[in-house]
Amino acid sequence: MNSSASAVAWCERLGSAAASAPASGIAEVMRHGFGRNGIIPLWVGEGDEPTPAFICETAAESMARGETFYMPQPGIQQLRDGLAAYHDRLYGGLFGEPFPADRFYVTGSGMQAIQIAIRLVADPGDEVIVPTPAWPNFPAAVGVAGAKACQVPLRFDPAGWRLDLDDIAAAIGPRTKALFINSPSNPTGWTATEADLAAIVELCRRRDLWIIADEVYSRFTYGSDRPTTPSLHDHIVPDDRVLFVNTFSKNWAMTGWRVGWIEAPEAIGPAIENLIQYATSGVAVFMQRAAARALSEGESALSSLIDRARIGRDIVSTALAAIPGVSFAPPGGFYLFFRVDGVSNSTEFAATLIKEADVGLAPGSAFGAGGEGFFRLCFARNPDDLSEACARFANWMSRRA
Amino acid sequence: MNSSASAVAWCERLGSAAASAPASGIAEVMRHGFGRNGIIPLWVGEGDEPTPAFICETAAESMARGETFYMPQPGIQQLRDGLAAYHDRLYGGLFGEPFPADRFYVTGSGMQAIQIAIRLVADPGDEVIVPTPAWPNFPAAVGVAGAKACQVPLRFDPAGWRLDLDDIAAAIGPRTKALFINSPSNPTGWTATEADLAAIVELCRRRDLWIIADEVYSRFTYGSDRPTTPSLHDHIVPDDRVLFVNTFSKNWAMTGWRVGWIEAPEAIGPAIENLIQYATSGVAVFMQRAAARALSEGESALSSLIDRARIGRDIVSTALAAIPGVSFAPPGGFYLFFRVDGVSNSTEFAATLIKEADVGLAPGSAFGAGGEGFFRLCFARNPDDLSEACARFANWMSRRA
Repeated sequence: MNSSASAVAWCERLGSAAASAPASGIAEVMRHGFGRNGIIPLWVGEGDEPTPAFICETAAESMARGETFYMPQPGIQQLRDGLAAYHDRLYGGLFGEPFPADRFYVTGSGMQAIQIAIRLVADPGDEVIVPTPAWPNFPAAVGVAGAKACQVPLRFDPAGWRLDLDDIAAAIGPRTKALFINSPSNPTGWTATEADLAAIVELCRRRDLWIIADEVYSRFTYGSDRPTTPSLHDHIVPDDRVLFVNTFSKNWAMTGWRVGWIEAPEAIGPAIENLIQYATSGVAVFMQRAAARALSEGESALSSLIDRARIGRDIVSTALAAIPGVSFAPPGGFYLFFRVDGVSNSTEFAATLIKEADVGLAPGSAFGAGGEGFFRLCFARNPDDLSEACARFANWMSRRA
Repeated sequence: MNSSASAVAWCERLGSAAASAPASGIAEVMRHGFGRNGIIPLWVGEGDEPTPAFICETAAESMARGETFYMPQPGIQQLRDGLAAYHDRLYGGLFGEPFPADRFYVTGSGMQAIQIAIRLVADPGDEVIVPTPAWPNFPAAVGVAGAKACQVPLRFDPAGWRLDLDDIAAAIGPRTKALFINSPSNPTGWTATEADLAAIVELCRRRDLWIIADEVYSRFTYGSDRPTTPSLHDHIVPDDRVLFVNTFSKNWAMTGWRVGWIEAPEAIGPAIENLIQYATSGVAVFMQRAAARALSEGESALSSLIDRARIGRDIVSTALAAIPGVSFAPPGGFYLFFRVDGVSNSTEFAATLIKEADVGLAPGSAFGAGGEGFFRLCFARNPDDLSEACARFANWMSRRA
């Protein structure tokens, strides 16, 4: 048996959910760039600044104090209190009261927050609606749970992507349990307006759906004086079924830490604790101490990251707007998601771009329905690298034309 | 609506797998002891020594170097190489060759290794056989995955617990996909002999089952010169379907870190990578650096922990053997699992013991079929605490008689 036949034989021995879990389309393209000197990698959703030193030092001090034992499953009290206080500062309380610490559950990454949120609301065979283009890990995690992700494409217009509530309503079936709302969206940058959010909440109340709310990029606001983009926090009442999934990754340059949180109605806390117990059984105390310090003293570090992203956003918006055949809506979060006229295979296009111009983009096809022909570029990076990448891309496009 | 009615209403809105995930019976008893001064807690599977300083320092140095970015999903090469070398030292290679690094996948805890292993082999509705008494998180994780854990009790005898292969064979049905083998066992201390392992492998070959092998406590050998208890590594051929799940928690006093690994046939590596991606998307690089150093330089720290556990094991074995009505088989791993004559509700008994004698034990009922009437005591602890706990227990038992 040759080794590829052997791999097939082994995979036939796996469960179908495991065998059918898709590889990330982003990772597939990244392989083309692996080990290339001089490539400018704009494909991953991650800045290029390491975690601020004061956060790292907090973790090191905690370890040195011997905080290396098992921990409470929902998270240490200091961090749950810190999350409540942080949300109070951003949203001025919830339901007319300060946020209770019991709404917050610390998870081993935003990804795990999503895994647990899906498991909370969807049994095998159930459905979850996902507006697309979307971060591929969300629908993939739905599939791994044995449920089905129903993709509903956003409408593209250079004036802005648009979520059509009628499209969502039409996708609701008898087994639909939840709607995933990611605003600002990775990859499109679509950002829900207050009116969008009010309509989404109303629809989900009427059709008896959970909302899994991913507002991970909400602090990265452009052209507004408010500390966040519009949030479901300002639209819900105590009976609304909303699970917020979030992460320390983007706000405090902690992508490599794998620490996130779920915010949920306190009444389902025991179910969340159990799912944490049977997933990874908690997050290291020393990481939680560091995360708590990021919340309480990280606001100026976050401001610097936002300023840097704003500069990056301006650079790439200006540069790409000048390239014939390129179109895009106003970018949000960390991303500019642009279309190149005439491209029908974005994976192949991205692979060629790597080889010929040393610029790394994520292919739109990786983001599901409505993504083909588009490319995602992360602008939360060094401005010089962004300028150089755009120049290389413009030059390559002009030679290609 | 009162708050308990409200909690019921909320839970009716959850998926059934989430709503039915059981709370840990160990945690339930621990609640009785929460905040009690002077209690000696022997209920958790964790030593009382913090992580060795050189391991913590390695993590701190890595963070300070800025290793805070996303990481390869299977783990950093240094740690995968380190795991291969560690296994070479213990088992002298595999299938006549050095262990390949590609067999090893770093996970966010041993618990996550189990979660992923179950997901790899069992779809919703499938069955996994679990010899019991067993660590409750294993069958609970099977349930969360939508599969069914079929409990097969070991046979208790003070001369030793015994796994009856006929009992296992009788439990195999058309949807049985895997057999869980935990040796040395948490909580019973049962340790498979070479003959047991040979028979288990033969049965699983014949009946087309995966083995999920948990040899987490294998380094804690008592009364043998070999560096590990008997291992499936010495019984398998390349076609055997065995997933080893393991952790850094016990060997290097890293319970609070949440770092583990899966060892698996290389052919299913892509499926494992995807399941890691959609679970927590990897483990912090700085933790992996620390784990690699634990492997390469942690052997003397591990020896000290083994010596300490051996002393603890002798203390509790001698003390409990002298208490009328108490019986147990030779303890293994971190645990002595003993029966108290006439006890039919171990949860209630354990709660009373906390209140009246300030000794914390895990109730046998938490460990599934065959566990009622027993109690688990962790002896990987300070010898003075163990002596004092045993004295308190003996005294309380004599007053109770």
